[in-house]
Amino acid sequence: MTSKVRLGIIGLGAQGSMYAKFITDGLVPNMEIGAIADRDPAKAAVAEAEYGLPFFENYLDLLDSGTVDAVVTCVPHYLHPEIGINALARDVHALVEKPAGVYTKQVAELNAFAATKPELTFGIMFNQRNNPLYIRIKEIVDSGEIGKIRRTNWIITTWWRPQGYYDQSEWRATWGGEGGGVLVNQAPHQLDLLQWICGVPKSVYAKVAYGFRRNIAVEDEVTAVVDYGDGATGVFVTATHDLVGTDRFEILGDQGKIVVEGSKTATVTRLVKPERELSDGMGIDEVRQLFTGRLNIAELYTQEIIEFDSAWGAQHSGVLQNFAANILDGTPLLAPGSDGINGVRLANAIHLSSWKGQEVPLDFDEDEFLAELNKRIREEGTFGERG
Amino acid sequence: MTSKVRLGIIGLGAQGSMYAKFITDGLVPNMEIGAIADRDPAKAAVAEAEYGLPFFENYLDLLDSGTVDAVVTCVPHYLHPEIGINALARDVHALVEKPAGVYTKQVAELNAFAATKPELTFGIMFNQRNNPLYIRIKEIVDSGEIGKIRRTNWIITTWWRPQGYYDQSEWRATWGGEGGGVLVNQAPHQLDLLQWICGVPKSVYAKVAYGFRRNIAVEDEVTAVVDYGDGATGVFVTATHDLVGTDRFEILGDQGKIVVEGSKTATVTRLVKPERELSDGMGIDEVRQLFTGRLNIAELYTQEIIEFDSAWGAQHSGVLQNFAANILDGTPLLAPGSDGINGVRLANAIHLSSWKGQEVPLDFDEDEFLAELNKRIREEGTFGERG
Repeated sequence: MTSKVRLGIIGLGAQGSMYAKFITDGLVPNMEIGAIADRDPAKAAVAEAEYGLPFFENYLDLLDSGTVDAVVTCVPHYLHPEIGINALARDVHALVEKPAGVYTKQVAELNAFAATKPELTFGIMFNQRNNPLYIRIKEIVDSGEIGKIRRTNWIITTWWRPQGYYDQSEWRATWGGEGGGVLVNQAPHQLDLLQWICGVPKSVYAKVAYGFRRNIAVEDEVTAVVDYGDGATGVFVTATHDLVGTDRFEILGDQGKIVVEGSKTATVTRLVKPERELSDGMGIDEVRQLFTGRLNIAELYTQEIIEFDSAWGAQHSGVLQNFAANILDGTPLLAPGSDGINGVRLANAIHLSSWKGQEVPLDFDEDEFLAELNKRIREEGTFGERG
Repeated sequence: MTSKVRLGIIGLGAQGSMYAKFITDGLVPNMEIGAIADRDPAKAAVAEAEYGLPFFENYLDLLDSGTVDAVVTCVPHYLHPEIGINALARDVHALVEKPAGVYTKQVAELNAFAATKPELTFGIMFNQRNNPLYIRIKEIVDSGEIGKIRRTNWIITTWWRPQGYYDQSEWRATWGGEGGGVLVNQAPHQLDLLQWICGVPKSVYAKVAYGFRRNIAVEDEVTAVVDYGDGATGVFVTATHDLVGTDRFEILGDQGKIVVEGSKTATVTRLVKPERELSDGMGIDEVRQLFTGRLNIAELYTQEIIEFDSAWGAQHSGVLQNFAANILDGTPLLAPGSDGINGVRLANAIHLSSWKGQEVPLDFDEDEFLAELNKRIREEGTFGERG
């Protein structure tokens, strides 16, 4: 292998074109584009004229061409697992776009196959894991600085999408073509970060609004209550109809609290002792002082504000670079591909809970989910069933 | 009647003493203290020495004494309806403390009795309704400025209470003595404001943590998802174990949004048109501009920051003054007593949902709730059953 990884871009839509630009602009020094594949033959001219690169209508031909060491899957979500498996089967490293797939059953197949190819690099484009703010927050939580997690609360409604966005193409915001709405398209980043930082819940209860404020079949608003199984719970809210959206993530631990605003600024509170010790150590006199405003509880904690500048594109190009570095020299992956299943599982559980009107475990029956999804695909009548 | 209402304070604990001080300090110009009642005979000396006032161990004697025109009920929550009814039955105006009671059945009895005495003033101490910020927010919502409400989200965890607070007296934080935890003691203000401003939900699903971070039988943490029945939903989170608590209330409407921080500052966003019109009116070119950062959505709304200074005690003394004014000249009540049932009903529904592990309607079976409550009182074994 040369010192640069030759990437095949499968799907030259908005996302694929963006990655191509990052690479040709030199933002990913250890990567070059090897070839491009797209089902639309009209993209051949673009590949030729803009990049002077080999072009394939069928991505399998790209995989067999010998022009690439790795691929990235910039195609509708349902196809990510299939393309990932076909790439790895041909000893081509695979970077799948988020979400890893639409239903866990297909993602589990991808993960199982990838496990048989440990010598290959299998990553997922969770670019938010490359946000230095979230990296720092994960460090703080993992180090135990704020203690055991007791509550999480994320409102992420900065995903405003007008109707015209949904009307761009036939597959978008359909059950058969896209497999869901905000949960599978916009919020996978937060569904991943939440679990990456705070752990995987045991169960979820959700209210999901389908075609609530948009003329679509799938969900444009979600309210989910997660249960981590150890007393800790959390709330996750997302929507695509809030023009001036909120992005506020709160993590309460036994010994501190983190409040992230706009994925840009975090206020980290560290208690001088575990909260329960502070509570138990307070005598009746101090309780009286507390209620008469004579106890200064600000002495019981310190606060730090963390803020990072972030350049547009740095997150995505950083994931590309990290993926290439893992191929070239074994640099640990920021986002191993096998982690992709967590976000898909939580999204599936949220859908399933809303369909059943009850709390569901995260190890729900995958066949039941797929049957419910296929019921909606059948009723829609535009695309074939899955699975 | 004189130009001042003579108030009987029933219960000279922390709250009753505070009201006495407000009145003797002249913060309530249209009110004076007529008499004091407390089950603790030791309080007689306090009443005599500090206030030079008639004292009664039995509140019924106070009601019959002719020394008061009105009473306020500063006693454990279970007693509010009974005292309210006994006062009104003797043609004494009644201001009940929040919550109006512990279970809706007893509050409904109070409301039904009060309805037979329309000539008397029946109020409830919802002092937060006298917060100028919430008054202004209610005006904005009622006037339709932000359109129909689509989402609400209140995290109110500024109710930090150390263990010593719960250990102060035998009845506190018990099923039989207090009837609940944060829902019946601390959060009734927000349970009221939420419904006063945003309307009464149709159903609720809740996760409630009992004795989670405190050594108590009742709840110290609540996560509730409310459903307004018209597509709108909301989240309500409260807890007593967050030392550096959050108070953040978000209301999303069709044509705007209000975010209240710390019950002190509100950011009011007003869209230039209803959100759905803005969404539908955006052509494919504008959608492309949006995704390439060339569309300035800030032109689609205006923002206003609202902030009020609030003096300590002004809220409570204002409610006392308004209650007296209603008696004296018919000034409309800020908080009619009959409104108290809404907060109790929502608290009961939250408890019931957590006990049943499922969503419950707000018009739940009141007998079922009372049976569940009595089951917990029996198991506790300290106090008698209710109802």
